[in-house]
Amino acid sequence: MDNERSPLAQPFPNMPTIGGVTLRTARAHYKDWDRADLTYAEFAEGTAVAGVFTQSACPSSEVEIGREQIKNGTARALIVNAGNSNAFTGYRGREAVDQIMTQVAEHLGCASEQVFVSSTGVIGVPLPKDKARDGVAKVLTAETCTWEEAADTIATTDTFAKGATASAIVGDKTVQISAIIKGSGMIAPDMATMLGYIFTDGAIDPAFLQELLCAANQQTFSCITVDSDTSTSDTVLAFATGKAGNAPLASFDDAGADAFAAALHDVCRQMAHLVVRDGEGAQKFIAITVSGAQCDESARKIGLSIANSPLVKTAIAGEDANWGRVVMAVGKAGEPADRDKLSIGFGGIWAARNGQPVPDYDEAPVARHLKGQDINIEVDIGIGSGRATVWTCDLTHGYITINADYRS
Amino acid sequence: MDNERSPLAQPFPNMPTIGGVTLRTARAHYKDWDRADLTYAEFAEGTAVAGVFTQSACPSSEVEIGREQIKNGTARALIVNAGNSNAFTGYRGREAVDQIMTQVAEHLGCASEQVFVSSTGVIGVPLPKDKARDGVAKVLTAETCTWEEAADTIATTDTFAKGATASAIVGDKTVQISAIIKGSGMIAPDMATMLGYIFTDGAIDPAFLQELLCAANQQTFSCITVDSDTSTSDTVLAFATGKAGNAPLASFDDAGADAFAAALHDVCRQMAHLVVRDGEGAQKFIAITVSGAQCDESARKIGLSIANSPLVKTAIAGEDANWGRVVMAVGKAGEPADRDKLSIGFGGIWAARNGQPVPDYDEAPVARHLKGQDINIEVDIGIGSGRATVWTCDLTHGYITINADYRS
Repeated sequence: MDNERSPLAQPFPNMPTIGGVTLRTARAHYKDWDRADLTYAEFAEGTAVAGVFTQSACPSSEVEIGREQIKNGTARALIVNAGNSNAFTGYRGREAVDQIMTQVAEHLGCASEQVFVSSTGVIGVPLPKDKARDGVAKVLTAETCTWEEAADTIATTDTFAKGATASAIVGDKTVQISAIIKGSGMIAPDMATMLGYIFTDGAIDPAFLQELLCAANQQTFSCITVDSDTSTSDTVLAFATGKAGNAPLASFDDAGADAFAAALHDVCRQMAHLVVRDGEGAQKFIAITVSGAQCDESARKIGLSIANSPLVKTAIAGEDANWGRVVMAVGKAGEPADRDKLSIGFGGIWAARNGQPVPDYDEAPVARHLKGQDINIEVDIGIGSGRATVWTCDLTHGYITINADYRS
Repeated sequence: MDNERSPLAQPFPNMPTIGGVTLRTARAHYKDWDRADLTYAEFAEGTAVAGVFTQSACPSSEVEIGREQIKNGTARALIVNAGNSNAFTGYRGREAVDQIMTQVAEHLGCASEQVFVSSTGVIGVPLPKDKARDGVAKVLTAETCTWEEAADTIATTDTFAKGATASAIVGDKTVQISAIIKGSGMIAPDMATMLGYIFTDGAIDPAFLQELLCAANQQTFSCITVDSDTSTSDTVLAFATGKAGNAPLASFDDAGADAFAAALHDVCRQMAHLVVRDGEGAQKFIAITVSGAQCDESARKIGLSIANSPLVKTAIAGEDANWGRVVMAVGKAGEPADRDKLSIGFGGIWAARNGQPVPDYDEAPVARHLKGQDINIEVDIGIGSGRATVWTCDLTHGYITINADYRS
């Protein structure tokens, strides 16, 4: 975390411990950082797991292995390596992951398939097995740590530690959810995103947990973008230890399932927003609400076309209500639209309606809105009832500075 | 042309006059510019026309009308307005185009459908009809002008005038092609691009001219991108006056058709490259050659995914051989790929082969290559014989400065 703290940063929340989850960190020295870079979470026996992963055609070994592991539905441990993504490293990368899984499984006396591994950082450098072995040995016996220390340790170019929490009443029990996430650039998740970890003491059937995570993902992580670039390592995992003692949830028919689903969705939305708030070079947080599209998925695609447009993002950076660029981004989205029914507004004020500028459009309140940190863009396609909100940040000199100077 | 001249600019070529084409410019004062902003080209009777247009779902009236006009196959005049795109202006925008078509048609004694109109500039402001009427009246009787003056007059944020020329032997005649183009930002043409005009004295059947233009477009304008943003007004028109006196070309069976097609392709490629060379903030011209893809179209899509990646573009700006970002962009393209068969090189030197870093990779010659202005990225997908080359520029602070400060 050498970069200047994002102006959109939020304080780390007060997050409850989760029964059945133990956190530890250590230094594996993957990079020349003066901080911990290896995070370990240990789970009670019987912990359920669900996950969503990058859709990249060139994923990391961690993602390939993780997709298989999820099918078993149970987890005992998570290891996160920061500073080296281990992606595009062939058999050597896979060997490093296998070694870590075996080492942790021997320590816990569990199956190696119950040990989940993630890595984030530079692409194309095999994770050094000696450093991994020493780091894992250290972390297995390290002092336990706080949520904030764990969130700091999984970070790379992030400028602040990111955590989210929520709770739900399930039957007569309170179920807690605590989550950490990292992400700053290469953010345009496609059904999954970055590295995010959700921990709950709820008792949830793994298949149902997977169903809930996929649903939340679709309206949260899949609705954010920083720079339209999709990582080879995007991963969000949810672990449910069952220590809350609630009657296990297996479907929406179970009492409290709706409440738990809402809390999980809330945590995912918080996490997704935090990633955007730490977007590389971000100065403004932008919510784009698209209504009147052919269907919800069409609205989401149009929203992402706007959110990924460098001309829209630079206009917001320049505090310019350049709605013509929004028209352009709707037009290029490849989704049904009718120019003469299209309306565009900023901060609740229509600048253009039904394919034409609003005649008595008063730019003064819009200009005031654009000077703020939280920007709202409203787009009404005018042809249906599809609706979605997506979130992004502006595109500034900071993004260029960070990414043109970063050395592989 | 207030911005600093692109470091990738090229001198305006020596372009032959085209029999049957007369050029004039005038000041319509659409913007507060101290230069001409209205361009007029008059064509001899019998001139054939072909065109390709933006695929935007929110095109300008000019594009909508142009798509209809092309079907007639003949043209007598072209008017280009610079400083106001007249896009997203509803019935008022359409009225302005109709007025211009009628005014020019009355002057020439032709059908108004034979008068083509293009406009470029800010979106959402109806083209002022009074300024258009006065400007057209002036331009119809103005002095004739040079190719370079016409190229200067169609420009907006361009930093240099762009022209291209080629010739072909058709039967016993030499057929000349001269062309002008503008474009600098909002450049990610989808089957068409920007405003480009091609003039030839060849005698070509309009349907065959359309076939040739579409084919050339697919490998030239459709293979460039500056910023992934697609304009609402993209238009390329080709006018063939027939004054060369060649036996008319109507199919590839006609003598000289191949030579003419090659010359047309050459001119389109030159024009497309010039647009990239004037990409907003561009410091480097990047050619990305993708081979081994499933098919040519898949190779083109992968190439554009790389060319549109802000992380790849900033890496090149930073002269960093960050091939991991190229892997990422291949992975997110949504096209068939196999990580373990993928190879990536810079300037003819492989950095990664078959899914792994090259063990004895010598970065020194690659570093030298990246310090130059002309950058080559080679990608071998390794699964088929599909092939394409796409062109783009790097993403620099200049792009942010131009677009965060531009006021609508």
